[in-house]
Amino acid sequence: MIRLDSTAAGFAHAFDALVNDRREADADVSRDVAMIVGSVRREGDAALHAFTQKFDGHDLNDSGWRIERADCEAALAALDPELRAALELARDRITAYHEKQRPEDMAMTDAHGVRTGARWRAVDAAGLYVPGGRAAYPSSLLMNAIPAKVAGVERLVMVTPTPGGVVNPLVLAAAALVGIDEIWRVGGAQAVAALAYGTDRIRAVDVICGPGNAWVAEAKRQLYGVVGIDMVAGPSEIVVVADRDCDAEWIAADLLGQSEHDPTSQSILFTDDAGFADAVADAVDRAIGTLATAQVARAAWDANGAIIVVPTLDEAMPLVNRLAPEHLELAVADPQPLFDQVRHAGSVFLGRHTPEAVGDYVAGPNHVLPTGRRARFASGLSVLDFMKRTSFLSCDADGLAAIGPAAVTLATAEGLPAHALSVALRLGR
Amino acid sequence: MIRLDSTAAGFAHAFDALVNDRREADADVSRDVAMIVGSVRREGDAALHAFTQKFDGHDLNDSGWRIERADCEAALAALDPELRAALELARDRITAYHEKQRPEDMAMTDAHGVRTGARWRAVDAAGLYVPGGRAAYPSSLLMNAIPAKVAGVERLVMVTPTPGGVVNPLVLAAAALVGIDEIWRVGGAQAVAALAYGTDRIRAVDVICGPGNAWVAEAKRQLYGVVGIDMVAGPSEIVVVADRDCDAEWIAADLLGQSEHDPTSQSILFTDDAGFADAVADAVDRAIGTLATAQVARAAWDANGAIIVVPTLDEAMPLVNRLAPEHLELAVADPQPLFDQVRHAGSVFLGRHTPEAVGDYVAGPNHVLPTGRRARFASGLSVLDFMKRTSFLSCDADGLAAIGPAAVTLATAEGLPAHALSVALRLGR
Repeated sequence: MIRLDSTAAGFAHAFDALVNDRREADADVSRDVAMIVGSVRREGDAALHAFTQKFDGHDLNDSGWRIERADCEAALAALDPELRAALELARDRITAYHEKQRPEDMAMTDAHGVRTGARWRAVDAAGLYVPGGRAAYPSSLLMNAIPAKVAGVERLVMVTPTPGGVVNPLVLAAAALVGIDEIWRVGGAQAVAALAYGTDRIRAVDVICGPGNAWVAEAKRQLYGVVGIDMVAGPSEIVVVADRDCDAEWIAADLLGQSEHDPTSQSILFTDDAGFADAVADAVDRAIGTLATAQVARAAWDANGAIIVVPTLDEAMPLVNRLAPEHLELAVADPQPLFDQVRHAGSVFLGRHTPEAVGDYVAGPNHVLPTGRRARFASGLSVLDFMKRTSFLSCDADGLAAIGPAAVTLATAEGLPAHALSVALRLGR
Repeated sequence: MIRLDSTAAGFAHAFDALVNDRREADADVSRDVAMIVGSVRREGDAALHAFTQKFDGHDLNDSGWRIERADCEAALAALDPELRAALELARDRITAYHEKQRPEDMAMTDAHGVRTGARWRAVDAAGLYVPGGRAAYPSSLLMNAIPAKVAGVERLVMVTPTPGGVVNPLVLAAAALVGIDEIWRVGGAQAVAALAYGTDRIRAVDVICGPGNAWVAEAKRQLYGVVGIDMVAGPSEIVVVADRDCDAEWIAADLLGQSEHDPTSQSILFTDDAGFADAVADAVDRAIGTLATAQVARAAWDANGAIIVVPTLDEAMPLVNRLAPEHLELAVADPQPLFDQVRHAGSVFLGRHTPEAVGDYVAGPNHVLPTGRRARFASGLSVLDFMKRTSFLSCDADGLAAIGPAAVTLATAEGLPAHALSVALRLGR
C-alpha cells in the first residue's frame, strides 16, 4: 500500500505512476493464445480434446463433452433454500434492471417524404465463458446470461473448464435458473476459439462474453472482429471516496472486498482527513488476518493498495476521473455533488449504506464493468451488447428528386462515377 | 462474377464458399503493424517522423506537422458553391438523423427505496482517421465526425497522410464544415498508434474511428482495449434483391457502385427471374467500360461479383441473412414483407428509388457499417460509439436491510468473505 498526500512535493509524479500502472498480461500470453486459437481453428474438436487433456487433466471422451440440462436441474433442486432464494432475488432484480435497457426502434419521415430509421434485433447466439475452480461465480453467470436473455438471444452456450472433470454445483444451479441452452466442458483460450470459429460439435456463436484468466481475455481480444466480445477485461479495481464520518471498519472491508479477488486487484481510498486515513489503514491490517482470503487480499493490498489524502473531497474528483475506475464508492452523507463531477467510472455506489458488494450480487445493475481506465470509453455489460442495429432508408421518386442531386455532386467530386450513375439514372438524367 | 441457381445441384456448397470468403488481411500485415505500433509507443514523435518520411515521402519538420484551421477555412471559402451546398445538405441531414440517437439517462426506485440507474457521458477526445490519396472522401469525414460532435465530444483530432506533402482541399473544406479541432499530417498504423498512446506532440484520444487500408484496420484491431474503436473494418459489400420489374441498368449501376470502391469489394444480386439476371449481367458489362473507375470495378466484379437466381424472393432472405451484408437493397414495389425477414444487415435500402449511393452521402443514416458478415453482431457507427454509460446504485439503511442479506449469502457461498463483511457490518451483524 502506498500513502500519498496530494499537496506533497512529488505527488503528481507518484499519481501518474498509479494511473499508468496497467497491470496487464505479457507478450508470452499473446503468443501462446495465438497458437491455441490457430490449432482450434484448423483441427476443431481434436484440438479441444488435446488441450483439455493437457490443461484440465481429463479426457472429454470419458468425462463427456457436455453437461446436461438434467444435471443442472438436479443441482438446483439440491440447493440450500436460503442460497436458492438469494439467487432468485438476484435473478429477478437483475432482470428488472436490464429490461429498462431494451432499445427502441426509430423512424422519421422528412418534408420530402424520405423515410429513415433504425431497427434493433438480437444476435442469434451468445457464448458465455464461466471460469472453473476458485473463480467460478454463479453471480457472474447471472450477470452475463440475463442481458442476453432480455435481449432475446435464442441460443445461449456456456463453456466452462472442469479441472479433473469436477463440476461446480452452484454454477450448474445458476445455469438452470437462467436457462442456458448448452454447456460444454471446455475452457481457456481453446474454448473461446471454439465458440468463435465453431467445431463439428460446437456451433459458432456471434458474441462471446464472460470473465476469465489472462489467456481467456487475450483470446477474446484476438478474436474480436470474428465475433463480438463484451470487453477487454483486465484486473479489477475500486476507488473509495470517504470522509471522516464514515466507519473506518466499513471502508476497510470495502477496500478488502476488491483486494480479495486477485493479487492484481487494486483498491484506492481518497479522504480529506489524515486521521481517518490512519484509522482505515489500521482497520485493514486488523481485518485482513481474519479473512479466509487473507493471502490474496494481503498480496493485492501490499502491491496495489493506496490511500490518498486530499485537502477537500472535491479536489479528489479530477484525480478519480483520471483513474476512470471500474467501481467508485462515494461514501459521504450527500454524494450527489461529488457524483455530478464524475466523468469516467464503470459504476458508482452512492452514500454510506451502499457497499460495492451489494451491487456485485443483488442490486440490479451489471457487475461486468470496464477495468484498467477503460471507463474513459467503455460501458458495463448491457442488453445492447447482445443486439445490433440495422438502419434503413426509403425514398420515392419525389424524395430522390429532392436529395439525389446533391449525392450525384458529391459522388462525382469523390471520383466515384458508378455511385453518381446509380442516382442519376433514377433521376432521369 | 459467378452465376448460381439456388435450385441447382451443388448450390449449397458454392453458396457456403461465398459466405465464408472473408477476403481478409494476411499475417504479414499483422506483424508489420505490431512492429510499427511498438516503435511509436517507445519512440513517439521520432517514430512518426521516420515512418512518414518512409511511407509518405515527406519530412514533417519541413512540411509542418499540423494542418491549420485557417487552411481548412480557406479551402471551404474556395469551394465550388454547388459542392459546398451539397456538403452542407449532407451535414445537416446527417446531424438531424444522429441527434435522434442520443441516449436517455435512466433511473428507477424500487419498493425498498433502492435507487438504480445509468448516466451517459461523451468521451473526452476522439481520433478520426482520414485516408489520403484516392480514398480521401469528405463524406467519410462527415459520417465519422458528426456522431462525435452530436455526442458532445470536446476534442476531435483528425489524422491524415499527405503523400508527398500534398493535401486534399475537399477534405480540408469538410473539416472546416464540421469543426475538427486538430489535424495532424500523419497516416498509416503509425498515426493510429500515436492517437492511442499519445506522443509529445499528439495527446492520446479515447476512441479512434474512420476507414483506412489494411494496415490502419489492423492497427485499430491491435489497439482495441487501449482505446475504443468504431469497428474492425474489412472489404465492403452490397447485396441487391430485385425483381424483373426493375430497370436492369439501375441495378447494374448499384452493383458497380460497390465494385468501384476496391478490387476486394463484393456485389451480389438475388433475383427470381433468369432473364432479368441476364439483362443485369449484360448491363454491367456495357456500363463498366464507361466508368473512369473501370479497372477497379472490373477487377472486383470479376473476382467477387455474383448473380444468384432463386425461385422466389422470399427464398432469398435466409441466404441474405447468412451473408449479413453491409448494404442491402430491396428493389421491389413493396419491400416491407422482405424487410420483415431481414435479421442481419448493416443498412437496408427500401424500394426501387433508393439506390445505396444516396445513403452514402446525404440521406442521414451513417455509411460506416459492419462488413464481412459482422452485421450478425455489430451495428453502424453511431452517437453511442462516442459515449459511455456509468451505472449507479444508492441504498439507505432500510434498502440495504432488504437486499443486503442475500448479498451476504451469495458472497459467502462464493468464498469472498470481505464482500460479505462489507455488507454485514452495515447491517449491524
